[in-house]
Amino acid sequence: MKYPNGIIKTNKNIVLYGNRGMSLEADINATNEYYLVNGIAVIHKKPTPITITKVDFPNRHEAVIKEAYFKIPSTTDYNGIYKGKYIDFEAKECSSKTAFPIINIHPHQIKHLKDVINHGAIAFILIRFTHHNQVFYLDGKYLIDFIESAKRKSIPYSFFKEKGIEIKDGFNPRLDYLKVIDSIYFGGDCYGQKIKF
Amino acid sequence: MKYPNGIIKTNKNIVLYGNRGMSLEADINATNEYYLVNGIAVIHKKPTPITITKVDFPNRHEAVIKEAYFKIPSTTDYNGIYKGKYIDFEAKECSSKTAFPIINIHPHQIKHLKDVINHGAIAFILIRFTHHNQVFYLDGKYLIDFIESAKRKSIPYSFFKEKGIEIKDGFNPRLDYLKVIDSIYFGGDCYGQKIKF
Repeated sequence: MKYPNGIIKTNKNIVLYGNRGMSLEADINATNEYYLVNGIAVIHKKPTPITITKVDFPNRHEAVIKEAYFKIPSTTDYNGIYKGKYIDFEAKECSSKTAFPIINIHPHQIKHLKDVINHGAIAFILIRFTHHNQVFYLDGKYLIDFIESAKRKSIPYSFFKEKGIEIKDGFNPRLDYLKVIDSIYFGGDCYGQKIKF
Repeated sequence: MKYPNGIIKTNKNIVLYGNRGMSLEADINATNEYYLVNGIAVIHKKPTPITITKVDFPNRHEAVIKEAYFKIPSTTDYNGIYKGKYIDFEAKECSSKTAFPIINIHPHQIKHLKDVINHGAIAFILIRFTHHNQVFYLDGKYLIDFIESAKRKSIPYSFFKEKGIEIKDGFNPRLDYLKVIDSIYFGGDCYGQKIKF
């Protein structure tokens, strides 16, 4: 059973989740909304790409999609602008304790990340290891380097611990990933640490 | 009757269309594909935003959307990166000879353009006046200024002639709007002219 305040009650015990039981996507959307409303950044999730094959028009002012199919995305899910820089990222939840399977990010999306990095973007992935209840920022260049050199089918949790930066859950914004970007790209500090690449 | 080479034959005469009978969206998508393949820029159209209310799973590997509705977009249709800068725009066809009705761009989209400009984006609209067979680039700041000061419900064709920049149809890319951006933002020239704002 799930209570609104994020307490999940099972038969045996009460577990209090740091992320208040929300999905990573919901956390990012809430964070982006906070950034937007406070004039910090303009970052949006893209709509799910679909192919529409049938639309009904029950009346002049209404259109109902009656048949459509999910398409493989050709870009990442999130992009926008922060401090004049183009921001681009993908976000995934990972239920494995030990590694993130690369197959969860489409080859198109990896190519896209590479492309935008070549054009000067700040690109990255956000991965939530649900078992550890940790969210990591992994810079796009580490992701690309890993994929191109390691020839493995998954990225070990230890790689995220080493090369990634953990983003602590917050109240508002819930998942302050721009703090990491401030540190890496704009000389700010991140949870009291300067991050050097 | 419509021939593949863009000649439209009616009972009375033959008309040769400069835009080869393609929609503005198709022209922009082909142009963006050209930019992408040639490593010039990464600019994509966002998927149409919809709300999915019913999905069927005929088998384990397939999902068919059986009911969905179109949503009002909260951002513009196109964004991406060019020469390290965040690019954001909306594109519309206009059948009126004399003016473009502002209602064709949602208030959310105008707010979005304003937001991204405040964060340092290159933002604009592309309007095709189908009757004149002309496509104009209108910089976001002129659009916002007009909307906020003129209190009119439409932007006259003459305003596009005065403040906009006409983009000539090309073969490949079909609609080279980055040429205008080169000129305005990167000191390049545009059809032999330097453009000053």
